[in-house]
Amino acid sequence: MHIDQIETPAALVDMDLLEGHIKRFQAYLDQHGIANRPHIKTHKIPAIALMQVAAGAVGITCQKLGEAEVMADAGIEDIFLPYNILGEAKLERLMNLARRVRMSVTADSDVIVRGLAMAAQRAAVTLPVLVEFDSGMARCGVQSPAAAAELARLIAGSEGLRFGGLMTYPSSVQACAFVRATRALLAPDGIPIERVSGGGTPQMWQAHEYPEITEHRAGMYIFGDRYTINSGAMTVEECAFRVITTVVSRPTADRGILDGGSKTFSSDLLGLDGHGLLLEYPAARFYSMSEEHGHVDFAACARKPAIGDRVTVIVNHCCPVVNLFNQIVGIRDDTVDSTWPVAARGMLQ
Amino acid sequence: MHIDQIETPAALVDMDLLEGHIKRFQAYLDQHGIANRPHIKTHKIPAIALMQVAAGAVGITCQKLGEAEVMADAGIEDIFLPYNILGEAKLERLMNLARRVRMSVTADSDVIVRGLAMAAQRAAVTLPVLVEFDSGMARCGVQSPAAAAELARLIAGSEGLRFGGLMTYPSSVQACAFVRATRALLAPDGIPIERVSGGGTPQMWQAHEYPEITEHRAGMYIFGDRYTINSGAMTVEECAFRVITTVVSRPTADRGILDGGSKTFSSDLLGLDGHGLLLEYPAARFYSMSEEHGHVDFAACARKPAIGDRVTVIVNHCCPVVNLFNQIVGIRDDTVDSTWPVAARGMLQ
Repeated sequence: MHIDQIETPAALVDMDLLEGHIKRFQAYLDQHGIANRPHIKTHKIPAIALMQVAAGAVGITCQKLGEAEVMADAGIEDIFLPYNILGEAKLERLMNLARRVRMSVTADSDVIVRGLAMAAQRAAVTLPVLVEFDSGMARCGVQSPAAAAELARLIAGSEGLRFGGLMTYPSSVQACAFVRATRALLAPDGIPIERVSGGGTPQMWQAHEYPEITEHRAGMYIFGDRYTINSGAMTVEECAFRVITTVVSRPTADRGILDGGSKTFSSDLLGLDGHGLLLEYPAARFYSMSEEHGHVDFAACARKPAIGDRVTVIVNHCCPVVNLFNQIVGIRDDTVDSTWPVAARGMLQ
Repeated sequence: MHIDQIETPAALVDMDLLEGHIKRFQAYLDQHGIANRPHIKTHKIPAIALMQVAAGAVGITCQKLGEAEVMADAGIEDIFLPYNILGEAKLERLMNLARRVRMSVTADSDVIVRGLAMAAQRAAVTLPVLVEFDSGMARCGVQSPAAAAELARLIAGSEGLRFGGLMTYPSSVQACAFVRATRALLAPDGIPIERVSGGGTPQMWQAHEYPEITEHRAGMYIFGDRYTINSGAMTVEECAFRVITTVVSRPTADRGILDGGSKTFSSDLLGLDGHGLLLEYPAARFYSMSEEHGHVDFAACARKPAIGDRVTVIVNHCCPVVNLFNQIVGIRDDTVDSTWPVAARGMLQ
């Protein structure tokens, strides 16, 4: 099927660009001896995860148990779940995963560590647990090297668990300083930091500048979006992900309405102005949305679209957009190559 | 199952409140002789649409063909699709629906009307088409009563179509003036305006103040959210929809992290400050999110949660939140009453 025959709105991925991103970033990380552990939150599609692993990734990163279960079912054998898992049902699911694949998780408090230890002992597995630390984003994570070292000692001393190293987001100079300070504190205990997991797509090409980070988690690098382009990690031409839409109304000389709104594009702004870049109309301003309509000002465009014309949108943030679609269409030479169900979408638990 | 045993994050609906909203708003519209045509964009669940129709709704409103197909399959017999439908494949789907159920649609340009007419003739159906007009929201819609009258004449004169009236969002004083002006222009042609579709949940209890509006489309009234509460249409206690979460991290004395972020709550702000109201901690500030984590400042709360505590969130905007979940759980007396797949979620085409 030709791209022009695909019903809109649809989320497309250029296969050549996708394969290029997977290969090029893997080569870069290989060159610098950094393990690649891509985050599947961006695509949520087993086939793409398998492509990443086939290219050389040591495993994948998931954010929720439901995502990890989908990926384990698809044959992924090494899954990192950097999340505080707690509660009897979730711990049991985690242990079931740990019996099937190489699982590792994070913790940032003794409460989480004790829960993991109890569940691991009951399941008779040994689970690697990394300590999550806060390197400035103010999300989860212990607040100081002393707290990281204390938690590392607790993990190392817990039956059923193994201290797996440190984890933060994103990779940064501060993160490296935190790692060094924690290593110094743990040296007298003879506890090595075997793995330090950092990440981020905006800083993907600077990964080698953070010598303490041994593995990189990036999600968006395979697709790209306006945010990635604005961060300098990718050009517009390199962006593999786009949403095609149709102009369904031209109520005024300047206003055009697309057949996709916040339920297609999400409301993520990430500090950007407007809701997307229109490839055919780069001067257009995608200024607002209702749930199923996109509102565009074409005033600055010499040529303006007619009702029925197609418009290709580079979205602000590809991850939540993928999560709104039931399927993603892979395109090669303007023709449909693959149609992937977004198998791990909506896996909130 | 007791509410405390439900895994988080989960989207819950209080059944007593839901049934109360359906009954109370239907009674209000009945009292004022206004037809009730609820918008299913909020719930996307056939069982709830059937409850609305059983209570007296004349039919439902959908925004996309895929939603209408799900609802027709579930036995809904009267569906309004206030959307400009164009393109061969979509027009064929529309005509297939029109053969099965009472369909009506909107148009705001001659291009759309001509496409509908050609498809209706080919399918040998007579399709009611309402003219969408812009009453100030600057979305779709013709811009003047003269343009509305001209399009109404085109529809009335098109084989396969029937002029079905006018449609706008939301109901307002300006909308009524627009309707009167259009009616005056159409009177010499002997074209009556049989139906005027308005709507909106914020102004739901003012529907009777707009005498020209003959039917009301409201979506959120059955659930409610922070936006609805802020608009004055509902109290916090009346809000039937909430998301339960678990505190998975307490990195600092004041910060708490919930197990839901933008992929649970959407990024819709609708002019509100923060991402939700925490029922157990009304002074807490839900100030930011990553995709799977919610970041809350509990500084102003006398009592602060521990890791593992549950937190109930009244969301900013219930419609996109429902669209992120695969299922919604109906609760009665703190016990699971129903579990509904969100059958029409992700129906973007």
